[in-house]
Amino acid sequence: MTPRIALDAMSGDYGPTVIVPAALQVLAQDENLQLILVGDETELKKHLGHLPAHLSQRLSIRHTTQRVEMDDLPSHALRNKKDSSMRVAIDLVKQGGAEACVSAGNTGALMATARYVLKTLPGIDRPAITTALPTMQGHTTHVLDLGANIDVTPEHLFQFAVMGTVLTQAVENIPNPRVGLLNIGQEEIKGNETIKEAARLLTESPIINYAGFVEGDAIYKGTVDVVVCDGFVGNIALKTTEGVAQMISHYVKQSFNQNFFTRLAGLLSRSILINIRNKFDPRRYNGASLLGLRGIVIKSHGGADVMAFTYAIKEAMIEVQKNVPSQIRHQLAILLGGDTEQGSDQ
Amino acid sequence: MTPRIALDAMSGDYGPTVIVPAALQVLAQDENLQLILVGDETELKKHLGHLPAHLSQRLSIRHTTQRVEMDDLPSHALRNKKDSSMRVAIDLVKQGGAEACVSAGNTGALMATARYVLKTLPGIDRPAITTALPTMQGHTTHVLDLGANIDVTPEHLFQFAVMGTVLTQAVENIPNPRVGLLNIGQEEIKGNETIKEAARLLTESPIINYAGFVEGDAIYKGTVDVVVCDGFVGNIALKTTEGVAQMISHYVKQSFNQNFFTRLAGLLSRSILINIRNKFDPRRYNGASLLGLRGIVIKSHGGADVMAFTYAIKEAMIEVQKNVPSQIRHQLAILLGGDTEQGSDQ
Repeated sequence: MTPRIALDAMSGDYGPTVIVPAALQVLAQDENLQLILVGDETELKKHLGHLPAHLSQRLSIRHTTQRVEMDDLPSHALRNKKDSSMRVAIDLVKQGGAEACVSAGNTGALMATARYVLKTLPGIDRPAITTALPTMQGHTTHVLDLGANIDVTPEHLFQFAVMGTVLTQAVENIPNPRVGLLNIGQEEIKGNETIKEAARLLTESPIINYAGFVEGDAIYKGTVDVVVCDGFVGNIALKTTEGVAQMISHYVKQSFNQNFFTRLAGLLSRSILINIRNKFDPRRYNGASLLGLRGIVIKSHGGADVMAFTYAIKEAMIEVQKNVPSQIRHQLAILLGGDTEQGSDQ
Repeated sequence: MTPRIALDAMSGDYGPTVIVPAALQVLAQDENLQLILVGDETELKKHLGHLPAHLSQRLSIRHTTQRVEMDDLPSHALRNKKDSSMRVAIDLVKQGGAEACVSAGNTGALMATARYVLKTLPGIDRPAITTALPTMQGHTTHVLDLGANIDVTPEHLFQFAVMGTVLTQAVENIPNPRVGLLNIGQEEIKGNETIKEAARLLTESPIINYAGFVEGDAIYKGTVDVVVCDGFVGNIALKTTEGVAQMISHYVKQSFNQNFFTRLAGLLSRSILINIRNKFDPRRYNGASLLGLRGIVIKSHGGADVMAFTYAIKEAMIEVQKNVPSQIRHQLAILLGGDTEQGSDQ
């Protein structure tokens, strides 16, 4: 399948300055890919310059006049920005003009618009956000939800588990991913009622390889492949991770920069330290999936640079190739006993 | 003030094997300190051996016949283990036989017993657990609650802010600590109703230096001195931190151990790497405070070794010297408009 991916080119902290070069880079690497830059045509052309034919044939521009700002309320974006680059990129997915879209814009507005335009899959009440995180075992863990759903029911957590399972099977090629439920202890008696009930649903499900409660450290120990939690907790875990990693990196730099001898040791360890830094480079993990929609929507970090944004485009490409939404729909149909067409658009 | 501290000597993964040597170490360092080892006398004496007079004068044993197990339900410990080392150590604080107690036992049982025996301070509905964490700025941040309270009201979060403020003033000598409320975004519109209402209470309070919403990374950036959250979120943040730190440490070791050249670089960087490891050594941060009680109770990590347990004893000593419970009571009295004697024992 030739993926056509719509890019919300006006999004993020840097807009076309970052997104156009990232698009050209990925386009040059994959000769099947087609990209649609959605945004202000004049501005986009300024950043495109003169393109060689083998790239320009697979790149088009879809002109829009509006832009969703980082502080726009989701409801405002939805009502008043129907010709925004974000909205039109999602519309393209809905109308079949693209198989996926990528945006570095306002997460709340992106989620609300995607949900309104694309609708959720049958059996999914609420979409969730997830991303891959590195583990001690080498493989990655997918944590969801990372911030779309603050208040959840046991059924929502169960749906997150199904979506996480399907995504991990598709993207990481793990046939039977282990699913853990994030809790403050591994004992059965721990946690609130929502989590206990979710545990019961997961234990009873034949399609989930449920591994029980896991604590926060399990995300990075890699004891499971999917970690399920509500969006508040998931977001705090993700941001805490960023904080710890930045602090350690800060002290490592400082320690190797104290005097002549430490700088010499740092010089000799340079390639090792660079390797470690690369291993945890958040840019390599850029590209969170909005799961549970009837279409593929990838959220890039707002502050993404060119390299980071290329990873978000690549995540979209993988999900198109594996047709993740259709696989989630299929698994849910088995669960629900028949492929119903009804979905929730609330 | 000469601190007398009761140690739950049968607690933790290693019991007297760790706690007796830790006690002797701290006793030798501080000639004013008095320690009471609470536990099985025969076993304790076996670990004590023959003591020099200057130590034995300041060390006593309080014999007990029971032990709270790590998997004992709090209610079971409370009802059936009245002669446990944990219970008697707390009883000593209540009866004035000690100014503080330290336990490495079952957190749930410790919290339930401490609350039942000591009662909460006037104006405090629920005690909270907190500990100091390192930051990029050099100073530490206190996060609370770390796991005692899964479901909280805005008033509980407000009380956590008061307790965190007082503890940070006392222990870290920061006159006007900045308090942040942990949330999934810094914008006013983010978060659930509990958090928004807590924000309102904090904004209006004259005794809290409220800095607004903070995200997970703020804990380690050191942008605030106190981070307030419910016990579920706090525990996940703490455990996630452990996971990230372990993973990074794992990859650093692995990277320096790949071949002859990387091992040589590792050898030259040895003292730097040891310094960094020491900086984040969790043993140095051992000793969480159970705040909001009419007495000082310190929880050591169950897996603490001798060095780690000495840090928990030292935390108890500082809180005795600064009389933290009385300071919290004083601040609350100002807030409540008069030093009432009524406290909650629920």
